Amino acid sequence: MSDFDFESFITDIPDYPEPGVVFKDITPLFADANAMRQTVLAIADHFRDAGITKVVGPEARGFMIGVPVAMELGAGFIPARKPGKLPRETYFVSYELEYGSDTLEIHRDAIESGDRILIVDDLIATGGTAAATGKLIQEVGGELVGYACILELTFLNPRDVLATSGDQELFSLVKVG
Amino acid sequence: MSDFDFESFITDIPDYPEPGVVFKDITPLFADANAMRQTVLAIADHFRDAGITKVVGPEARGFMIGVPVAMELGAGFIPARKPGKLPRETYFVSYELEYGSDTLEIHRDAIESGDRILIVDDLIATGGTAAATGKLIQEVGGELVGYACILELTFLNPRDVLATSGDQELFSLVKVG
Repeated sequence: MSDFDFESFITDIPDYPEPGVVFKDITPLFADANAMRQTVLAIADHFRDAGITKVVGPEARGFMIGVPVAMELGAGFIPARKPGKLPRETYFVSYELEYGSDTLEIHRDAIESGDRILIVDDLIATGGTAAATGKLIQEVGGELVGYACILELTFLNPRDVLATSGDQELFSLVKVG
Repeated sequence: MSDFDFESFITDIPDYPEPGVVFKDITPLFADANAMRQTVLAIADHFRDAGITKVVGPEARGFMIGVPVAMELGAGFIPARKPGKLPRETYFVSYELEYGSDTLEIHRDAIESGDRILIVDDLIATGGTAAATGKLIQEVGGELVGYACILELTFLNPRDVLATSGDQELFSLVKVG
């Protein structure tokens, strides 16, 4: 496990997007070249021997961390997108969010049977987005190895939700309890 | 210049998002680990000696290509986002798109005076998004070195629009005329 101080690059924004919520802003982590590199390496190193063939990242911040992790692992990257953004035939899933609900789509031909998949996002809060993405992957025939994130909001108990979708590991760099 | 066949990883989707338009789907390029690596290297190699300190990518596909190019250049990454997504004080710009109009925001503290900026996106069509992003960067005090993209739709004449914002270079891997 990296001893890099990831937390010092994450800014708390009180009362955003609504009163009483503390938003975790990870943009400073990406603005700093070394912090970004340490973040990507710490996640990739953890899954280096897991035989990952594809990384899936939910739109939009999941693209920011998913693509470089995929590159570092020598895996392909598959975007899970908001409705209407992918031009070919898709599977989709709708799910509850911390604030409201949302839908994600993935191209039907994006994942082949036997692909070993890692889902990567910046933040795992309730686990709703990650679990929905995992459901999509299993629908298209991929083998879900696990979930990785920069920041896990443990007080929202995402592991309760993700455990329902199987034995997949959840790896997080920073836990906020 | 790389002699990798980038074009074979870009799929034409006729009549998407509307009749008469041919959508260029770059998701196969990211699904293939080697194609993704060649893409990132070809763009980064072109700007390797340009002293880039920050790469700016417009939401959302600009995140997919902008982040790994930034990492390869040892630069930070700054997202230019859709309205209401960035939690701290922002500058914003509204602009015309090929289909409709849009707004992009950037954190006010994201770019420091003296930063040398490369704007990276997957596709440059009319040049509207790139030009608007360039305008934002100059507003926050950055030095705009140029624009890079995977795919340039030369028949939409983006260089006419981008030339109006200065002498910055536009580098594209694939030109569609």
